[in-house]
Amino acid sequence: MSASLPPFPKPQEPTDEPVLLELSAGADEPCLRADAARNRARLLEAATRLVAEHGAAGVTMEAVAAAASVGKGTVFRRFGDRTGLLMALLDHSAQQLQAALLSGPPPLGPGAPPAERLGAFGRAVLRQSVDHLELQLAAQPEPTRRHSFPPQRFLSGHVTLLVRQAVPDADAPLLAQALMGYLDPALVHYLTKDCGMPLERLESGWNDLVERLIRTELP
Amino acid sequence: MSASLPPFPKPQEPTDEPVLLELSAGADEPCLRADAARNRARLLEAATRLVAEHGAAGVTMEAVAAAASVGKGTVFRRFGDRTGLLMALLDHSAQQLQAALLSGPPPLGPGAPPAERLGAFGRAVLRQSVDHLELQLAAQPEPTRRHSFPPQRFLSGHVTLLVRQAVPDADAPLLAQALMGYLDPALVHYLTKDCGMPLERLESGWNDLVERLIRTELP
Repeated sequence: MSASLPPFPKPQEPTDEPVLLELSAGADEPCLRADAARNRARLLEAATRLVAEHGAAGVTMEAVAAAASVGKGTVFRRFGDRTGLLMALLDHSAQQLQAALLSGPPPLGPGAPPAERLGAFGRAVLRQSVDHLELQLAAQPEPTRRHSFPPQRFLSGHVTLLVRQAVPDADAPLLAQALMGYLDPALVHYLTKDCGMPLERLESGWNDLVERLIRTELP
Repeated sequence: MSASLPPFPKPQEPTDEPVLLELSAGADEPCLRADAARNRARLLEAATRLVAEHGAAGVTMEAVAAAASVGKGTVFRRFGDRTGLLMALLDHSAQQLQAALLSGPPPLGPGAPPAERLGAFGRAVLRQSVDHLELQLAAQPEPTRRHSFPPQRFLSGHVTLLVRQAVPDADAPLLAQALMGYLDPALVHYLTKDCGMPLERLESGWNDLVERLIRTELP
């Protein structure tokens, strides 16, 4: 399963500016009609509920059609096949997170101190990972592209900005990468599935990590 | 290219005890004759020099034979094919690191304060990664096995022990995973190749990360 996002120019330096995700739907279908867009959103919401209830294995074209009360043909026309549906689902959730980071309410969005925003960021990414773990693992690019992959660069760019605000004298891109490593879906998989750790422990570990790295105490 | 190490039982918790690597050569060939063992070591040393000088692409069966002044047939008999040679090379370097951590001189080996040992550990792993980057990336297991892979578990177990000694009240396995994330070969590849950062900057970043995480100053 390969990712659906377009290739991105190689950075010379870890980006300080968040890389805006290009929306697959928008890029492919600039003139998506309003009712088609509503239909697509409804299908993705149904698929999101199915993932939350049954994991990625529960997301079939048939199940999504039934959950959204539409015909199966509609789902096939919209997404092509199950891989297309799953990639659209990952894009959808990445875009929701991006919108929340850029313009949502604080502390995830702008307006809170950087330490609090970092805390909220990690908790949001961990929750999203736990919900979409199988999809994220399946969509993970090969090792040489894992960190230059645009969605990853958007998130690490966001963390770099917050780290720089919190500790202006640090090597922000490197501390940001250390933070991002803790949120790697493969690690979340290992800790929750192989080691049986609850999400709450990973969240506490994230808060502790942020507090130590930026030498502060979170509220 | 798949790794040559045997499967390992699933941990229920990130291990606190380092997992000893099983030596591929020892496991396959318990009665390797002394001259054959010397021969093997000589070939691996020749291959290591070739990697340092020309990268993994420079390691061919022919080049290793020439560098060790033996016939090409000897190299084929010893390692089977190029993949076998490359995996033996990775094992060899992992075993050298393990020996240095368990019984080498401080600060990498026992006898130095845990903070200094962590500092030396990261610098050693980063140097090894830069030398063997292509091999390590090619040998990296799929995401769901990346963190339970025995060589990875040995290293994260070692770091967990040192973190626990340095900060007894912390969630040591989670802080250890945060540290290990910084040493991920895929990240080292991104930072050195895509972003053009020198190894020295990554080493400074490691020292800074250790100092912040265990709230101390390295000498």
